[in-house]
Amino acid sequence: MSADYAELSRRLADLTALEEVVGILSWDQEIVMPSGAAQARGRQLSTVQVVAHERLTDPRLAALLAGLQQDATLDATQTANVREARRDVQKATCVPSDLVRALGETAVRGHEVWVQARKNKNFSAFAPVLAELVDLAKQRAAAIAPDQPAYDVLLDDYEPGMTMARLDPVFARLKEVLLPLIARVRAAERGPDLAWLTQHVPAETQRQVGERIVRAMGYDFTRGRLDTSVHPFCGGAGPTDVRITTRYNEDAFLGSLTGMIHETGHALYEQGRDLSLADQPVSRPRSMGIHESQSLLWEKQVAHGEPFWRAHYPKLQESYGFLRNKPLAEFLLGVNDVNPNNFIRVAADELTYPLHVILRYEIERELLSGRLDVRDLPAAWNERMRGYLGITPPDDAVGVLQDVHWSGGAFGYFPCYTLGALYAAQFYQAAVMQHPEIPEKLALGEVEPLLGWLRTHVHQIGSRLETDALVTAATGRPLDPEPFLRYATAKFTRLYRL
Amino acid sequence: MSADYAELSRRLADLTALEEVVGILSWDQEIVMPSGAAQARGRQLSTVQVVAHERLTDPRLAALLAGLQQDATLDATQTANVREARRDVQKATCVPSDLVRALGETAVRGHEVWVQARKNKNFSAFAPVLAELVDLAKQRAAAIAPDQPAYDVLLDDYEPGMTMARLDPVFARLKEVLLPLIARVRAAERGPDLAWLTQHVPAETQRQVGERIVRAMGYDFTRGRLDTSVHPFCGGAGPTDVRITTRYNEDAFLGSLTGMIHETGHALYEQGRDLSLADQPVSRPRSMGIHESQSLLWEKQVAHGEPFWRAHYPKLQESYGFLRNKPLAEFLLGVNDVNPNNFIRVAADELTYPLHVILRYEIERELLSGRLDVRDLPAAWNERMRGYLGITPPDDAVGVLQDVHWSGGAFGYFPCYTLGALYAAQFYQAAVMQHPEIPEKLALGEVEPLLGWLRTHVHQIGSRLETDALVTAATGRPLDPEPFLRYATAKFTRLYRL
Repeated sequence: MSADYAELSRRLADLTALEEVVGILSWDQEIVMPSGAAQARGRQLSTVQVVAHERLTDPRLAALLAGLQQDATLDATQTANVREARRDVQKATCVPSDLVRALGETAVRGHEVWVQARKNKNFSAFAPVLAELVDLAKQRAAAIAPDQPAYDVLLDDYEPGMTMARLDPVFARLKEVLLPLIARVRAAERGPDLAWLTQHVPAETQRQVGERIVRAMGYDFTRGRLDTSVHPFCGGAGPTDVRITTRYNEDAFLGSLTGMIHETGHALYEQGRDLSLADQPVSRPRSMGIHESQSLLWEKQVAHGEPFWRAHYPKLQESYGFLRNKPLAEFLLGVNDVNPNNFIRVAADELTYPLHVILRYEIERELLSGRLDVRDLPAAWNERMRGYLGITPPDDAVGVLQDVHWSGGAFGYFPCYTLGALYAAQFYQAAVMQHPEIPEKLALGEVEPLLGWLRTHVHQIGSRLETDALVTAATGRPLDPEPFLRYATAKFTRLYRL
Repeated sequence: MSADYAELSRRLADLTALEEVVGILSWDQEIVMPSGAAQARGRQLSTVQVVAHERLTDPRLAALLAGLQQDATLDATQTANVREARRDVQKATCVPSDLVRALGETAVRGHEVWVQARKNKNFSAFAPVLAELVDLAKQRAAAIAPDQPAYDVLLDDYEPGMTMARLDPVFARLKEVLLPLIARVRAAERGPDLAWLTQHVPAETQRQVGERIVRAMGYDFTRGRLDTSVHPFCGGAGPTDVRITTRYNEDAFLGSLTGMIHETGHALYEQGRDLSLADQPVSRPRSMGIHESQSLLWEKQVAHGEPFWRAHYPKLQESYGFLRNKPLAEFLLGVNDVNPNNFIRVAADELTYPLHVILRYEIERELLSGRLDVRDLPAAWNERMRGYLGITPPDDAVGVLQDVHWSGGAFGYFPCYTLGALYAAQFYQAAVMQHPEIPEKLALGEVEPLLGWLRTHVHQIGSRLETDALVTAATGRPLDPEPFLRYATAKFTRLYRL
C-alpha cells in the first residue's frame, strides 16, 4: 500500500469514527437522554459535526484524493474507496459554510414551525419557511453542480446517480399497472372480518414475540440492541453497533411486528458490512434506495408471504390466543390488507405506497424547478390525491403537512422508498432464481440461503460497486420495475380473487 | 468582553463539548453498548480525545491565554477561567505526544494484565507492567514540572495545589486519633445481632426505595438518569445531563442504598454548577477531593446520622418488612457498623477507611521516589496492613491487587477519598453552625437549608476559587482534620459506649 493511500485510510477512518460518534449521540438523544440535556446535546452534536466538516474539507485530503485518482496501482476496492471519498469531499467543499449554516438553522426552525402548523392544520403558517428551505436547497444544488437541474443534484444525495430522466419512465410504468390494479382491488368483494387486527396485545408480550422473530432473522444482539422509541429507526455506530428501535401499539400488534422486521432488514445490511473495511467509505451501504430494499425485502417479500409464516405463525398463535382458531390463509389476508382510502403514506399498504411517493416526487420536482409555487402546494397535493387514489384529505394535517421531510429541507428522499420496493423485488426474485430452495427453507424457519445471498450480493459489496453495477451483478439487470409489478399483480390477484 | 476573551470562550466551549461527548461515549460503553462494539468504541473515543488534545495544544489558544493573563480588565470570574484553562493547556502541552500514547497503551495493557493477575492472585504477573506504569508516571511528572517531586505533580492532577508536605501532618494526625479509637471499638462489646443487614431484598424493591430517597435529596431526574452498572459511578455530560448508576446486591440492601446516596452527592454537585458558565472551565467542580466531599457529606454526615433517618426510616420499614420491629437506634448501629477486620478499601467503614488510604499514599510516594521497588510491594502492603489494622491479607487479590487505580497508571488519586471525608465534615459542621435548623429540617425530610448552603458555597463556586480559598470562604479555615476527628470520636464513642 502506498504511503499516500495509507494516509488517506487513516484520515477516512477518523472521519468514520466521528460519524459513528454522531450516531451514538443521536441514538442517545432519542432513547435515553434526559429532557433537560437537549440544549447541551445540540452543542455537542454541532461541535463534532464542525470538526468532521473541517477534516473533510482539509486541502490535504483533497490533494491526496487527486493524486490517488491517477494511481494505477490501486486495486478495485481502493479505487472505489477513493471514488466514494471524492464524492463526499466534493459535496462538502463546494457548499459555502454560510450556506451550510443557513441550511442547518432554517431546518431547525422549519421543523419547529411545521410541528405547530401540523398541529393547527394550518399550511399557511408553514409556507414562508418552506419557501426559504426550497430556495436554500436550490442554492445548494447550484453550488454543487450549476449545470444540472437542481432536483437531480438533490436526488443524488440519497441515491447517487439517480436522475429525473431515469425515474420518469419507471414511475410512469408503475402508474400504468398499479392504478387499474388498485381500482380492481377497490371493487373486489372484501375478505373476511379483520377486527382481530385491533385485538389488544400488551407491549411486553409484543416485545418478546418480536425479539424472537428478529433473532430468528439473523440479527446479532452482541452487535446491537432493541429499544423503544416514538419513531422507529435503525441507528448506532458502524457494523458492530447496530441499534434498532420500535414502538408497540397495543391495539395494532401487526404494525409493530412488521415495523420491527423492517428495521431488522436495515440492521442486517449494516451488520453484514465488510468488517475488515468498516472504517472506510467503501464498506458503507450503497444508497438510501438500496438500504430501503433490504428493509422492504424482509418486511414485504419475506414477512408478507406464506413461507415465512409457515415457520412463525404457530408460535404466534401460541402467544396471541385470539389467533388460535384463525387459519394461516386468513391471517395472510390481514397482513396483506389493501386500503386505498388512506391519506397517510406511513400507514399505506404495498399497492398504494408507490402512488404516495410519486405524488411527492412530482410536487418536489415542480417546486425545485419553480413551476409550482409553495403557496399552491395544498391544491396541487389534493388534486393529485384525487387523481391517484380518488380521495381528498379533510385537512392539511393529513395532507400536505403529514411528512417531516420537507420541514428539514430534505427534498429528493421520497423516491428512495419506492426504489427500495422495486430493488427488493428484483433482489428477492434473483435470489430465489439462484436458490430455488429459499421459500421452503423460510417455511422451516431457516433464513440462511437468503441471508447468505444478500450478504454476498449486497451487504459485503457495500459501496465497492455503484448502484447500477451492484444491481446488475446481483440480478442481471439495473433498476427494473417489472419484478415488483409481476409480484404485486400475481399476489393481489390471488389474494383478492380478481 | 474583549474580542480575545470572546474567542477564548468559544474555544473553551468547544473543548467542553468534546469532553461531554467523551462522557456520553463512556456512559454508553458501561451501560448500554453491545459487547461486540468494544473495539469500535475504542477508536471513537481515541479520535475524539485526539481532536480535543489538538485543540487544547493549539498555539493560538496558548497565545490567547498568555495575552489575557496580562489583561487587567477581566473580572474575577474571567480571571479564574483563564487560570483554569492555563493549567489544562500547560499540562497538555508539555507532555510529549509519544509519552501520552505510551501512557494510554500501557494503561490498557496494565488493566488487562491486572484483571488476570487478580483473578489468579498472582502479583508477580502484574509487577512488570506496573513497573512500566510507574516509570511512565515519573517521566510525565518530569515533563510537567522537572523541579518538583514526581508525586507532588501527580497529586496536583486530582487535587490542584496539594503536596506531600501538606498531606503528611494531616495524615499523621488522623493516625494519632484513629488508631487508638479503632482499638477501643475493636475491644468494645459488640452491639446487637446485625443479621438483618443481609436479609434478601429484590433489586426492583431496592430500586424503588432508592429512587424515592434520591429524589428527596433534590436530584433532578429531568437532568439525569439512574441506571444499573457493575461499578457505580456518576457520569454523563455537563450539569444538564448527570447520570448516576448503582448496583443492587440482593443480600446487602444497605450498601446499595448508601451507594446510591453517595453517587447522588456527586450528582448534586454537578447539577448545582453555574449553568450560565456550564461550557467554561471556571464552572467545573473544584477537585476530586471536593467532589468526594459532596458524595461523603450526603452518604456519611447526612445518611449515617439520626436526623435523616427520622424522616426516611418509617417508609423504609414499610418497604422492608423485616425492619418493622427494629427501633431506629438499632438500625443506626447497623448503618454505622465498624469492622476493622476488613481487607477491602471499598467495603471499609468510616473509621478504618482513612487508614486504607494512608497505606496506599505511603506506598505510592515511595514507589514514585524510588525508595520502594515494585517487586517489594506485597511485603510493604502486608506489613502496613498489620501495622494499621492488625490483619494480614490471605492473598494478593484481597491485598495489593485489590484496587483498579494503579493498573491504569493513576497514582495520586487515593488521598482524595480521605480529603473528601475531611472536607465533608468541615462543610457539614460549618453549614450547621450557620443554619442550626439543618438537623431538624433533615428530620422532616427537608434538604433545603443544607442543599442551599452547598449550592452557594461549593456548587455554584465551581472553580472560581482555588481549593484553599473555597474551603476557607465556606468554613473559615483551609483543610483541617479536626472537624472530622471530633465528629468521628463523638459518634463512635456514643454508638459503642466507649
